[in-house]
Amino acid sequence: MDKCFILKGNIIQSLTPREVAAVPGGLLVCDGGISGGVYAGFADLPERFRGYQLRDMGDMLIIPGMTDLHVHAPQYTFRGLGMDMELLEWLGKNAFPEEARYRELGYADKAYGIFVDDLKKSATTRAAVFATVHVPATLLLMDRLEESGLITCVGKVNMDRNSDEALQEASAEDSLEATGQWINECMKAGYRRTRPIITPRFIPSCSDGLMEGLGHLRREYKLPVQSHLSENQHEIDWVKELCPWASCYADAYDRFGLLGDLDGAENALPQGISGAIMAHCVHSTDEELRLLKETGTFIAHCPQSNTNISSGAAPVRAFLDRGLRVGLGTDIAGGASISLFRSIVDAISVSKLRWRLVDQAYKPLTMEEAFYMATAGGGAFFGKVGRFGAGYEFDALVIDDSRYRTARQMQRWERLERFIYLAEGSGDIIGKYVAGQRLF
Amino acid sequence: MDKCFILKGNIIQSLTPREVAAVPGGLLVCDGGISGGVYAGFADLPERFRGYQLRDMGDMLIIPGMTDLHVHAPQYTFRGLGMDMELLEWLGKNAFPEEARYRELGYADKAYGIFVDDLKKSATTRAAVFATVHVPATLLLMDRLEESGLITCVGKVNMDRNSDEALQEASAEDSLEATGQWINECMKAGYRRTRPIITPRFIPSCSDGLMEGLGHLRREYKLPVQSHLSENQHEIDWVKELCPWASCYADAYDRFGLLGDLDGAENALPQGISGAIMAHCVHSTDEELRLLKETGTFIAHCPQSNTNISSGAAPVRAFLDRGLRVGLGTDIAGGASISLFRSIVDAISVSKLRWRLVDQAYKPLTMEEAFYMATAGGGAFFGKVGRFGAGYEFDALVIDDSRYRTARQMQRWERLERFIYLAEGSGDIIGKYVAGQRLF
Repeated sequence: MDKCFILKGNIIQSLTPREVAAVPGGLLVCDGGISGGVYAGFADLPERFRGYQLRDMGDMLIIPGMTDLHVHAPQYTFRGLGMDMELLEWLGKNAFPEEARYRELGYADKAYGIFVDDLKKSATTRAAVFATVHVPATLLLMDRLEESGLITCVGKVNMDRNSDEALQEASAEDSLEATGQWINECMKAGYRRTRPIITPRFIPSCSDGLMEGLGHLRREYKLPVQSHLSENQHEIDWVKELCPWASCYADAYDRFGLLGDLDGAENALPQGISGAIMAHCVHSTDEELRLLKETGTFIAHCPQSNTNISSGAAPVRAFLDRGLRVGLGTDIAGGASISLFRSIVDAISVSKLRWRLVDQAYKPLTMEEAFYMATAGGGAFFGKVGRFGAGYEFDALVIDDSRYRTARQMQRWERLERFIYLAEGSGDIIGKYVAGQRLF
Repeated sequence: MDKCFILKGNIIQSLTPREVAAVPGGLLVCDGGISGGVYAGFADLPERFRGYQLRDMGDMLIIPGMTDLHVHAPQYTFRGLGMDMELLEWLGKNAFPEEARYRELGYADKAYGIFVDDLKKSATTRAAVFATVHVPATLLLMDRLEESGLITCVGKVNMDRNSDEALQEASAEDSLEATGQWINECMKAGYRRTRPIITPRFIPSCSDGLMEGLGHLRREYKLPVQSHLSENQHEIDWVKELCPWASCYADAYDRFGLLGDLDGAENALPQGISGAIMAHCVHSTDEELRLLKETGTFIAHCPQSNTNISSGAAPVRAFLDRGLRVGLGTDIAGGASISLFRSIVDAISVSKLRWRLVDQAYKPLTMEEAFYMATAGGGAFFGKVGRFGAGYEFDALVIDDSRYRTARQMQRWERLERFIYLAEGSGDIIGKYVAGQRLF
């Protein structure tokens, strides 16, 4: 009867990108870490769940846990700072010098401790995380995440060219050897919730030889992969120079087997955790989107980061219309906030400005669509995650929105919509479950 | 010795739109409600302040209070709801039906109670506030604001055409009579901190006859004025139809004496509280901006609202380059958040997307510039407000940013910059002073 209980409250989830279901005073069953479904009342509850412990959350809102598809843990130290530049300058001045500090395990310990504490309190239940090139610090981060109860993929970053000297790895061979060693350490550690993910930083930082080796490692160990794609126009121009043989930026990953699911099956769900995430895709061409669709690659849409470092406004409506897999990323520290509630609002906001300023062919995102991306959309990278349907893993947030007072009467979905706009940090999340385990 | 004391802490203020000064462990003197200046230490403190009570805020940040140049108090009830539409539909479906409810004083009491409680806890020390057409409810709001210690201008709204039947006033005469009665009630009430402000909703809701009468009332009682200008293209087209005689939208206000300072003096500071605020100016033409400049009219830039209801991205850089008076507005409930910290971030964000997507001739706003607009820029509407220079009114916020942890060492300005990006509601504001009075 481990992880067998019933949460009672106002249960809200996405059924489809356009449709949200709210069950006021509903019952949400956790059956050994897996959802047993949502029921309107005890009369509807299947016999086999009737003995389960009831946890009555009163008038609280209960929603699926959220997935952060793109976050740089080491950059959490400088979130909200140094935003007055574009990507390549920002990497050189902010990101690379800070990441170089994670060579010191003492610094990593302090910095990652804060990151994991805050992530644990946040709306995020699952995340795809970039660490740095450093194996010991990356393992330390993975230890901390494992202890936290969160479920994550964490990547030791690879970079063997065009980077800060203090950070860059000496050669493709060195980088690959360190990566192999790291994967072995991960296996020895016996993590239950923390999985290594192949993480070439982006094409400009990784030689062809390194990329080829990472493709081999991916297949050898059946690992997922994450990287950056078509974030900034200067970056894209640079990739064209570096990889004249690639038909588009995404092709430079695909050539080495670093896009899509390992088995190559399109949209095969549940898919386990062997997929690929490409962050941003702000300026992806039609050809590139076709390739992402064919391979079943996930796009991590990072609206706050794309705004802060002036990358642009990704055509998310086009992603959805084409049936691409899309989730949200905070992209700390291009994004300042670790809150996926904030990412939802930013996704809507950016889509409205894009509609107004660029192209009225693509309608702005609705709250329903952005909520879907934060829960079910990104959750799909981790398998059956991000909904409460029977058979999905039991990730849930319990939200107390009582401090946002109003003289009006509101429906449950209105309460959630309003809460997402107003959410003030993580203080309103009063309960959090990941795969049935209660974190607080 | 009333309101005579010294705040010690990390004192940060704007000197110019481009320049911020931070004095770590500095002394900020309040001399009877007026700033006595900032001093680096006791050795520098003028003799006459040496007996003043010291309030040591330790490592806290101390910044000027902020001015919200545009906020609709009655719309606070539905903040964060119903954002999937543009201005005119949004007014008809959200704003007008809600505002009609303030005919009931019981509803107004409950709703305005919540609004004022939250505003008191927020970063806002001064505000220009829209109420509704209803005189009793508007006076109730003014009573509440007066008790709160905040300093505000509050407007009974005028609207005699093209509005919701349940809200619209019966005629220009009725509207003007109610406005005269309201102004008299304000004078009888003897408010010390709360001033009436002439508030035609916007041209589409106000007949020429009403506007003419409001111009007379303004001059008779020497009152400031606030309204909306060039927010949305459909609205602008409508104004062209309604006022074919006006050379631009702003001219339709100017014709009735409803722009600029009462004396017509350009940029005369300190100017008391008799100026004019026009919210938005998203689509203002060159001619319109010239008129705003000539008359010394304040622009309330409302980036969150302009995003939420898809109005567009105001060319704030052009406003600053032309030397226009600009402050920030939350524009509840086009804007969802009452926090001016959030407005600062949104102003920067929107300017970056405008730069990227529309026009690279206008550089994005810097944090320094947006911070200036929230403090000194909008504060100037209320006179010598929004800075700590000797002679300015003493509005100050004491901020505890200790919960935003990092492994890095940071300068004071970096701490403030980061705090503004991360600020989670009002819980971090632990002290607030308005004209020397401590609110908490």
